[in-house]
Amino acid sequence: MDILTILGVIIGFGAILGGNIMEGGHLEALVNGPAALIVIGGTFGAALLQSPAKIFFGSLVLLRWVLFPPNLKMRHSIDKIIEWSEIARREGLLGLEAVVDEEKDTFAKKGMQLLVDGAEPEVIRDILMLELEVLEAKQLLSAKVFESMGGYAPTIGIIGAVMGLIHVMQNLSDPSKLGAGIATAFVATIYGVGLANLLFIPVAAKLKSQIHAYSQSREMMIEGIAAIAEGENPRNVEIKLQGYL
Amino acid sequence: MDILTILGVIIGFGAILGGNIMEGGHLEALVNGPAALIVIGGTFGAALLQSPAKIFFGSLVLLRWVLFPPNLKMRHSIDKIIEWSEIARREGLLGLEAVVDEEKDTFAKKGMQLLVDGAEPEVIRDILMLELEVLEAKQLLSAKVFESMGGYAPTIGIIGAVMGLIHVMQNLSDPSKLGAGIATAFVATIYGVGLANLLFIPVAAKLKSQIHAYSQSREMMIEGIAAIAEGENPRNVEIKLQGYL
Amino acid sequence: MDILTILGVIIGFGAILGGNIMEGGHLEALVNGPAALIVIGGTFGAALLQSPAKIFFGSLVLLRWVLFPPNLKMRHSIDKIIEWSEIARREGLLGLEAVVDEEKDTFAKKGMQLLVDGAEPEVIRDILMLELEVLEAKQLLSAKVFESMGGYAPTIGIIGAVMGLIHVMQNLSDPSKLGAGIATAFVATIYGVGLANLLFIPVAAKLKSQIHAYSQSREMMIEGIAAIAEGENPRNVEIKLQGYL
Amino acid sequence: MDILTILGVIIGFGAILGGNIMEGGHLEALVNGPAALIVIGGTFGAALLQSPAKIFFGSLVLLRWVLFPPNLKMRHSIDKIIEWSEIARREGLLGLEAVVDEEKDTFAKKGMQLLVDGAEPEVIRDILMLELEVLEAKQLLSAKVFESMGGYAPTIGIIGAVMGLIHVMQNLSDPSKLGAGIATAFVATIYGVGLANLLFIPVAAKLKSQIHAYSQSREMMIEGIAAIAEGENPRNVEIKLQGYL
Amino acid sequence: MDILTILGVIIGFGAILGGNIMEGGHLEALVNGPAALIVIGGTFGAALLQSPAKIFFGSLVLLRWVLFPPNLKMRHSIDKIIEWSEIARREGLLGLEAVVDEEKDTFAKKGMQLLVDGAEPEVIRDILMLELEVLEAKQLLSAKVFESMGGYAPTIGIIGAVMGLIHVMQNLSDPSKLGAGIATAFVATIYGVGLANLLFIPVAAKLKSQIHAYSQSREMMIEGIAAIAEGENPRNVEIKLQGYL
Repeated sequence: MDILTILGVIIGFGAILGGNIMEGGHLEALVNGPAALIVIGGTFGAALLQSPAKIFFGSLVLLRWVLFPPNLKMRHSIDKIIEWSEIARREGLLGLEAVVDEEKDTFAKKGMQLLVDGAEPEVIRDILMLELEVLEAKQLLSAKVFESMGGYAPTIGIIGAVMGLIHVMQNLSDPSKLGAGIATAFVATIYGVGLANLLFIPVAAKLKSQIHAYSQSREMMIEGIAAIAEGENPRNVEIKLQGYL
Repeated sequence: MDILTILGVIIGFGAILGGNIMEGGHLEALVNGPAALIVIGGTFGAALLQSPAKIFFGSLVLLRWVLFPPNLKMRHSIDKIIEWSEIARREGLLGLEAVVDEEKDTFAKKGMQLLVDGAEPEVIRDILMLELEVLEAKQLLSAKVFESMGGYAPTIGIIGAVMGLIHVMQNLSDPSKLGAGIATAFVATIYGVGLANLLFIPVAAKLKSQIHAYSQSREMMIEGIAAIAEGENPRNVEIKLQGYL
Repeated sequence: MDILTILGVIIGFGAILGGNIMEGGHLEALVNGPAALIVIGGTFGAALLQSPAKIFFGSLVLLRWVLFPPNLKMRHSIDKIIEWSEIARREGLLGLEAVVDEEKDTFAKKGMQLLVDGAEPEVIRDILMLELEVLEAKQLLSAKVFESMGGYAPTIGIIGAVMGLIHVMQNLSDPSKLGAGIATAFVATIYGVGLANLLFIPVAAKLKSQIHAYSQSREMMIEGIAAIAEGENPRNVEIKLQGYL
Repeated sequence: MDILTILGVIIGFGAILGGNIMEGGHLEALVNGPAALIVIGGTFGAALLQSPAKIFFGSLVLLRWVLFPPNLKMRHSIDKIIEWSEIARREGLLGLEAVVDEEKDTFAKKGMQLLVDGAEPEVIRDILMLELEVLEAKQLLSAKVFESMGGYAPTIGIIGAVMGLIHVMQNLSDPSKLGAGIATAFVATIYGVGLANLLFIPVAAKLKSQIHAYSQSREMMIEGIAAIAEGENPRNVEIKLQGYL
Repeated sequence: MDILTILGVIIGFGAILGGNIMEGGHLEALVNGPAALIVIGGTFGAALLQSPAKIFFGSLVLLRWVLFPPNLKMRHSIDKIIEWSEIARREGLLGLEAVVDEEKDTFAKKGMQLLVDGAEPEVIRDILMLELEVLEAKQLLSAKVFESMGGYAPTIGIIGAVMGLIHVMQNLSDPSKLGAGIATAFVATIYGVGLANLLFIPVAAKLKSQIHAYSQSREMMIEGIAAIAEGENPRNVEIKLQGYL
């Protein structure tokens, strides 16, 4: 589990609410149903409108990586690839047939199968790279859903604030309600700016980092399998793949 | 039909209007003819000025994809390409002649015709890729018309607000009109920010996603036809094209 | 002539002024010499400072494309290239000598001359592509002058507004002048935001679209001439160039 | 040590505090615990949430480069490479074996070892370039943590200001507290904008410059070792590497 | 000398000050020591902090190009290259030995020396291109110092304004000082926005244009020398290089 994610949320929201209490503010003043409806509903609506269904649901699936990042086991993968490389040296590519059946990672398995079938190194690289690129593009589009929400939330917060101010202005004749009215209007701004900067934008940034790391681990697998196909010696394969660590 | 589009619009606008009603605001306060004229007219005028005619009308045509995205039938296309690949194996490229006549997709048909005419794989790829790139560039420019409208609307909303404030300021002597006057001025801001964030920007983003998916389906077709021209065996063609799914 | 340009300006400015009149505003309130001097002079000064002379005057020359876009005659160019291609087939490259002298487009003429002189296809492509890239880079820098003006105008409008507010603040003792003074200050904001969004930014965007289309028409000419140099058959040349339509 | 870093911080903060004192402001007015908690805590929380652990701790390690930039010794490296190049000329690649053991820079050592092992120039370049690219990408992500903090701080400062204003608005009945309350609210804005512009953004920019210079020194090493592998003559190696100075 | 630079500064500042006077403002109202200290000192401090020493001093050296752009003499360079090309044709590459000694431009001289030494065209291109790219990257980083100052100045102006407002708020009890106090506060905004838009950003843009033109003139030199190395005939060299005009 990603401790920094939890720490980040606690410290971020804690500092803001704590600072507010220290100033003598009341937390109830920050609770406002209509403002929450406007900002969350409006942001969510815009996100739904902008996303094809695949991308939108993909973004929900991807969200788990914020708390539980994919376990890339880079070191372990390198060891595995070197082992394959040694088997290929000793027994030829066909010697890898037994390994293919045991391999659980479907991406690696596909590459190994191509290897055993005797596909050219360039063909293996092309096929696996294409699959990786299509997947990465989809994942990045899904991560960008949160980035967009980080863009919509503050501006929709402004809509909420301005609607609140309009409401206040129409009751200027009763000055006693003025301050409280404006206060309510401002809460929408806080919701919009706060959700964007304490949640949506950092979450999008973390997802992008994870996607980058994930793609790099796949790229390492592709390089490793292609190196075996090229008959590279196991030591050179190891030296090259260590560059990914 | 794209349900998310409809849901997005309903949830977005519903949340904002609902929040306003919950706060005790009156919907009539948000209805303002002059503000609508300024924001919609100004944004539309800027969009007309910025676009060559082809791009502007292209953007209107593209708009249907927001509700009715192109049916890409990727799985079906792969099956079709594999079938062609098998025919080419059994009967040679000329065996595809009958298929060309039946093919309804003009893009695929053009590629098939080149195949039957015995064009080199590289030539087929070049010709189809060029057509795809020119089309994609045109479509992206059309989608950017909505992105630009999302940029113009809020700033033109500010023009409307400032003009309203000027009007108010000139009548400061009559304080009873002050609040209502400012309220009217603020409506232009809401129209500008709202149209941009609940309509224009999300629509532009959805169109870009659809264009990306559409281009990818065309690219798959190009790869498939080029693979047949290269005499690739049907199984490898299938493995490669599955990367697009 | 580009009707959309004229429509865009009329609709944009018309909507804003019309909306103002509908609200009961007086157009005179929007006329303000000092504000115009500040915004237009400041924006123009910044644009002069930022531009090398060649680029600045280039931007004025390019401006004609906003109203009178270059007539690209793509269809006509394709026909011409196919005709050349057929002459080259029948009579050899030297058969094109007569055509060179008649050709009025200096860019096409340069390419044809290289063709007749027997230059390699790659050399022809390099020479013409370099000329196109240098020209396109210059044109884009010129179009960006308007984009920059769209960035300067609103911020310089803010300078005007703040200077107006300073002036007002120093006369706070006379409240009767307050409203009118603030109104004057706000006009600078309207000029800055209005000029940027209704003129400078859309004009820059239209010029970029035209430059893109113009470069594409040149690229088509390069591809066509290079194809003739490569001895490609006229039918394939036609199929390829149709991708540009 | 980087004198400009120290000068920049002293001049930046000195000018702002000095200007404040010249205006007759009291420095105590700028000290505000809750505002500091909100801005620093909120910004730090967002930065934690957005960063995978490796990147976050990497950003702390990288921070030392702001004061103590890496000593690249470009001139010295060129001399070393030329010496190697001359040894290789005289004694063959195996003659470099003794030098490898003495070399302390692990990156150069890895390249030298590949050289002695007789790896192809292209293989050496690939292996070292991959390692450099992976490292550079990590470093840039770490530098971007500060860039992001420069984006979060001002907007979280606005949250602090708006929360302060809400607090003020709820006590409008007591006008004597109004001014002081608003003053407190504004301090959060100053903290946010000040930290971003006087610390976070410039620090991120300096780190990016250092990373760029560091990568260039590594690239020079790669070019040099690859040139030796290609059997290039020492004089040409020198002429080429001088381009990096 | 670059007349547009001088005109731009005079027109930009003249229009703003002139507009202020036309409105009845007093220029003294825009003179404010503390505001100047805050904005200029803060911006300068941030720029020092962000820049490695080489880049910072490079930016000061580059500044002369704003008034005295480098004299590129493109036409003259082409003539020189064609002359070299003819000498090489008549007397062989060694015939250029005499010319090398006379050449004053060190960049061209380096290329000519490589030519006379009989280096391969690809080697000459690589060596000169690398030197150009390293230089261009340094120059662009230096130009970006001004761009960054254009980003810092307005936000530091806001710090000045908010500090001024805090000062005003603490003296609310004396309304007679209110207006003048706010006026002072606003001057910092004007300094920040004005310096950014009338100086820093346009200067950075002009420097980037000059760097682009300078690099292009070097690139032309590289192409010319490489063409001589390739034994290209003088006429084709001329036709190609004319593309840079």
